[in-house]
Amino acid sequence: MNFHALTRARTFAMTSTVLVTGFEPFDGRDLNPSWEAVVRLAETWSGPLHTARLPCVFGAAIPTLQTAIEVYAPDLVVCVGQAGGRHTITPERVAINVDDARIPDNAGNQPVDVPVVADGPAAYFTRLPVKACVAELRSAGIPATVSQSAGTFVCNHVFYGLMHLIATRYPGLRGGFVHVPYAPEQVVDGTGPSMSIDMISRGLAIMLRTSLSTPVDVLLSDGALS
Amino acid sequence: MNFHALTRARTFAMTSTVLVTGFEPFDGRDLNPSWEAVVRLAETWSGPLHTARLPCVFGAAIPTLQTAIEVYAPDLVVCVGQAGGRHTITPERVAINVDDARIPDNAGNQPVDVPVVADGPAAYFTRLPVKACVAELRSAGIPATVSQSAGTFVCNHVFYGLMHLIATRYPGLRGGFVHVPYAPEQVVDGTGPSMSIDMISRGLAIMLRTSLSTPVDVLLSDGALS
Amino acid sequence: MNFHALTRARTFAMTSTVLVTGFEPFDGRDLNPSWEAVVRLAETWSGPLHTARLPCVFGAAIPTLQTAIEVYAPDLVVCVGQAGGRHTITPERVAINVDDARIPDNAGNQPVDVPVVADGPAAYFTRLPVKACVAELRSAGIPATVSQSAGTFVCNHVFYGLMHLIATRYPGLRGGFVHVPYAPEQVVDGTGPSMSIDMISRGLAIMLRTSLSTPVDVLLSDGALS
Amino acid sequence: MNFHALTRARTFAMTSTVLVTGFEPFDGRDLNPSWEAVVRLAETWSGPLHTARLPCVFGAAIPTLQTAIEVYAPDLVVCVGQAGGRHTITPERVAINVDDARIPDNAGNQPVDVPVVADGPAAYFTRLPVKACVAELRSAGIPATVSQSAGTFVCNHVFYGLMHLIATRYPGLRGGFVHVPYAPEQVVDGTGPSMSIDMISRGLAIMLRTSLSTPVDVLLSDGALS
Repeated sequence: MNFHALTRARTFAMTSTVLVTGFEPFDGRDLNPSWEAVVRLAETWSGPLHTARLPCVFGAAIPTLQTAIEVYAPDLVVCVGQAGGRHTITPERVAINVDDARIPDNAGNQPVDVPVVADGPAAYFTRLPVKACVAELRSAGIPATVSQSAGTFVCNHVFYGLMHLIATRYPGLRGGFVHVPYAPEQVVDGTGPSMSIDMISRGLAIMLRTSLSTPVDVLLSDGALS
Repeated sequence: MNFHALTRARTFAMTSTVLVTGFEPFDGRDLNPSWEAVVRLAETWSGPLHTARLPCVFGAAIPTLQTAIEVYAPDLVVCVGQAGGRHTITPERVAINVDDARIPDNAGNQPVDVPVVADGPAAYFTRLPVKACVAELRSAGIPATVSQSAGTFVCNHVFYGLMHLIATRYPGLRGGFVHVPYAPEQVVDGTGPSMSIDMISRGLAIMLRTSLSTPVDVLLSDGALS
Repeated sequence: MNFHALTRARTFAMTSTVLVTGFEPFDGRDLNPSWEAVVRLAETWSGPLHTARLPCVFGAAIPTLQTAIEVYAPDLVVCVGQAGGRHTITPERVAINVDDARIPDNAGNQPVDVPVVADGPAAYFTRLPVKACVAELRSAGIPATVSQSAGTFVCNHVFYGLMHLIATRYPGLRGGFVHVPYAPEQVVDGTGPSMSIDMISRGLAIMLRTSLSTPVDVLLSDGALS
Repeated sequence: MNFHALTRARTFAMTSTVLVTGFEPFDGRDLNPSWEAVVRLAETWSGPLHTARLPCVFGAAIPTLQTAIEVYAPDLVVCVGQAGGRHTITPERVAINVDDARIPDNAGNQPVDVPVVADGPAAYFTRLPVKACVAELRSAGIPATVSQSAGTFVCNHVFYGLMHLIATRYPGLRGGFVHVPYAPEQVVDGTGPSMSIDMISRGLAIMLRTSLSTPVDVLLSDGALS
């Protein structure tokens, strides 16, 4: 979003400290491409970068994230999750204050229409330059689109939790969420489209670099008619 | 959303006054199923019902809606729009405070990443019992799902405008937005799925009845994983 | 296909005798829109029309069809089947000589890569004017496209069986297959797109009229890139 | 297809001579992933392998293919084409005797409903072990499914042309067609799903090895309901 400053005070550099999170597998699957790509990213990123693997559990995931923020004191936080069925890397525009689980999470919880944060605002916009990220990803030959919804499962839960932490406790922190496609090995029988872990991890590196170097997001039409 | 009361004060009855809006055609098309279905609905609804046809124009659409609210003093407002590509009737859960137009509107405007209402909150949740609506639609044999995003074009613009009016000027008003599929005659060459105008208008009647008779929404899982 | 005559000898009229078949439900469902639409069609068709409900069973379905052909001596046979996931009425272009069942049929059979007719040709083209049918359906506001594959389940099995009967025993018979979408009541939770039984049955009537009045198919591009 | 022998006489080995073809770009695009992947494959394949880049032109493509067969005298021919919109590698099961072009080819031809080969049979089944290929691709973590239709554009045209050449002139030749997804760089804006050229070329190598080592195809259910 370019109509509010993405951060209030800090300037960023490639030497800024970065925290990137992925998720453990869920829905009975063996791997989660978000975590696989984060591991790969950490092997190649040259600046200070920390990673955390979040549980796919309502409630527990946010304290795990908060602990990592406390411990690592990052300048930038990017949370990554799996969006089965999508075929592009999709930086998320907005987190909404609702949990509505179509399936149980990894602890068996299945909340329906409860807020992530009681008395929290209805939504938070990302504090990542999502349009600049999409432009840079495309320039590098990586399919990318802005997403208008992170769903209502644990991914949106963590995204909302992160933005609420930024709004209430870490005002100088830049952060947001990005969804990534299935890895090919998850969908060998054609269940859905996929993207290689290598391409996803290169895409995440581009998002980090762009987020660190873009003080105000660019103007690029990438909305949805509905 | 069941975690906040859908309205603050009023009780509703089938004799309550209803305002239903549709849109004029856009994107070079000859008809808009939202308006066709509203016209059909008005022919069969037995209670006091008013209709308005909104221009598909950023900015102008909201004052047109507000004038209708002023003139008709409805208890319930349901705005209807076309969602090309969807195959269910989709009550919208949340309106977000951003215009990001992939194509020009009918006046040639193409805003990118500007707020609907400067200094408005990031989002408003619907004040319709969307889960109860979906349950009743399905019981009647009509495909329906809750949508987590109304997009970033004129539909979301009007939805946000409506909810902002409710929040700031008409606190007792119940209202929200629903997207409907293409009509069959729009997509005879198979461009996308469709639903008959007759089924859409019957669906809208069900939504009105459900919205007038449901003080607190039901708990029904209908979220999205991503 | 316009490069071979659709039939060898006969001329047709609206007084010609027609046989239309649908299928019983399969895959654990309660209804099959193909049969529902055939029943509706029979209520409104003014000429001589016979119907048959075929079992969704490899092997058994073809003798049931052949018996109906023997008993009713039709001039035109149109077999109708459900194609879950499609959103148009799709006259089929070609039947192929293979059974390959992704799920068991209603008798528990699940053949894999066996021919429909041993020593039969690899495929038969339809003997319906599928392009003219599509043009007439679209003119009536009904979404329609030619399909290049009837799959490898019982629908293709019956289609191949019909065309083999025509080729080997009933050379003057005109016939073919058309797939239709889910009915709305089958997919109320949004599993897939749908079309009303009323529209499907009107579409079938158009296909019958067009098939009876079109000696040579029209030239209309409606192929697939892949 | 396992119900006919894939070839009549020859035995194959990894030292057999292989011809692999790709296509030039079409539909206004800058690259064709089929050719890019073939070039990559040729860099890594250890046995005797020849390649040919076919024009995306009805009529001209088949003589180009035939010349390559004459010159290189291959034991195995695999033709590769782009299937925009698919997300798996799809060995094709059957070629049909019809050209029906939705768009003009690269020479401006747009045939509608004319046969590939006058008086040719309606269809030919592939002479590749497509089920074994799919099984091996999946074992290697590469998404793959059998396709029941190669469309009606130049890809099917070449596929039918190849199978007709095998049937009429080169009875010992094993051959068939495989469609591959868009490359990521073709769809950076999210137009459709994609697969990396690296994965496609590894997939083609697996198809060659499997085709050379599988005398009779395996039984694996991979059909389509419709």
